[in-house]
Amino acid sequence: MAERCAIGLDVGGTKISAGLVDSHGRVLHTLRLPTPVDDGPAGIFRAMRALIDRLIARTDGRELVGIGLGMPGLIDRARGISVQSPNTGWRNVPILAEFADYGLPLELENDTRCHAVGELHFGAGRGVDHFVLLTLGTGIGSGVVLNGQLFQGGSGRPGEIGHVTVEPEGPLCGCGKRGCLEAVAGGKAVGRRAQALGIAADSRELFALAASGDERATALVDRVAWELGLGISYMINLFNPQRVIIGGGMAEAGEVLIAPVHRYARELTMPGIRETYEIVPAALHEEAGVVGAAALLPGLTAMQRKGA
Amino acid sequence: MAERCAIGLDVGGTKISAGLVDSHGRVLHTLRLPTPVDDGPAGIFRAMRALIDRLIARTDGRELVGIGLGMPGLIDRARGISVQSPNTGWRNVPILAEFADYGLPLELENDTRCHAVGELHFGAGRGVDHFVLLTLGTGIGSGVVLNGQLFQGGSGRPGEIGHVTVEPEGPLCGCGKRGCLEAVAGGKAVGRRAQALGIAADSRELFALAASGDERATALVDRVAWELGLGISYMINLFNPQRVIIGGGMAEAGEVLIAPVHRYARELTMPGIRETYEIVPAALHEEAGVVGAAALLPGLTAMQRKGA
Repeated sequence: MAERCAIGLDVGGTKISAGLVDSHGRVLHTLRLPTPVDDGPAGIFRAMRALIDRLIARTDGRELVGIGLGMPGLIDRARGISVQSPNTGWRNVPILAEFADYGLPLELENDTRCHAVGELHFGAGRGVDHFVLLTLGTGIGSGVVLNGQLFQGGSGRPGEIGHVTVEPEGPLCGCGKRGCLEAVAGGKAVGRRAQALGIAADSRELFALAASGDERATALVDRVAWELGLGISYMINLFNPQRVIIGGGMAEAGEVLIAPVHRYARELTMPGIRETYEIVPAALHEEAGVVGAAALLPGLTAMQRKGA
Repeated sequence: MAERCAIGLDVGGTKISAGLVDSHGRVLHTLRLPTPVDDGPAGIFRAMRALIDRLIARTDGRELVGIGLGMPGLIDRARGISVQSPNTGWRNVPILAEFADYGLPLELENDTRCHAVGELHFGAGRGVDHFVLLTLGTGIGSGVVLNGQLFQGGSGRPGEIGHVTVEPEGPLCGCGKRGCLEAVAGGKAVGRRAQALGIAADSRELFALAASGDERATALVDRVAWELGLGISYMINLFNPQRVIIGGGMAEAGEVLIAPVHRYARELTMPGIRETYEIVPAALHEEAGVVGAAALLPGLTAMQRKGA
């Protein structure tokens, strides 16, 4: 039987990454193009097709089981539509119909939720039935896996932990509410807070300063860790997951942020539940978008999960 | 084919309610005994058996498909054990084994979660796949139904909304944490706040005063409604339910509390999700415990849900 592979595309606001992924989650080839945002959907579709065509030419006799697409924003997975995209400004743009001529199984999902599916099949989600993937980056998002499947909720948007209110009088969030976790403790917001206090130019510098022992930086990082720990405790109290997987750019800050996040998450979670989960780092990093998009294809993962 | 029925028992801290419930969720007979807490498990088991025996004698030719038991605290449903009970002080008491001699299917579940199963099959949860039942009483709890089934989480304790931290420096909660939603906005806590402010003797009086237009009572009720709305917004942001069902003693306060709770829950929920759910009152009231416990029996409900 021929080895299987799938194409995964991660369509971001600045670049489109594409990869050929095998049934063990290994990335065989990767390609990248800048996202031609100014050219509208047609231009982006052209770039996506160019990447797909080049990867199809490199399957080397493997059976290509489909194409998975991940992109930010609100996705209607069943209909293959980008309902609303923050970077491109798309509204109700049919995506999968554009690629029907390839004659291959197609899947479309939100990028963070793709990442969760990637961790489920090929990463830190293996071996458990219930987990939440939290991405701590510029934004704060999550993908929720329950009973071994990506949870879709009532309208395809569960796990919006970035938009729970943690500071009622806090800064305005991109979503229109005030004091959302993302508006307070997302990477961009943390950078702004560090700037306003004259501590650092951005979150990366802030974490580096805190790691070197700077007192004011440490105090701000501690406050941010408490806020993130609070949000994580909500996820644990409500979803009662066996595992919490932490990914995203801020997770790369390392122990200076993640150690106090762990501590506060545990403190703020109900006794009786706080003993029942573990927090682990994501296994997928830069390749999470591509691997996660490919992992949407049942043809790639059907045999994988059984062995988990 | 004979009409089916099941026995439901609701074992509370002060009384044990028992009922014979038919496959439409109707309560055919009910009985009650005070909970002999001081007699320990053996005394409580005796009282439970007395109620079961009397109901078995009244099945009137109906097929008895099993006995469902609901009780407060942490339940290990698969093993039929009360892991921890707040009222009786039980720890790891095997429950179902005590009733094996009846030779009937037996089910055991936490009482709030029983209520959710009752709403699922016979109440306000019919017609949707994803809902959360919130009980706003002395305590604050929830039962979460996902994909038409009671969600069990990783360790049998999802939906602990009463124990999310809403006021970090707030009062100590029975769970050991500080500022839990239940410790701030549960019925008992609200009564204490009303007393401390010299407004009313308990929460019931507070709500009555607010309904009559008293300014100070209205201000406190508004604050409590905001806190409850915040907790509900967390449930909606994370579970993305189609429906939120509100039950419990405080829900009986009526519009004076529930109208602002609705308003704040909506305000505090993320745009894009806040348009996708409805809030409705519980359909089951005093009989919720008994009907919910009976509804645990697949033999009673298997045919019911299809017609929903």
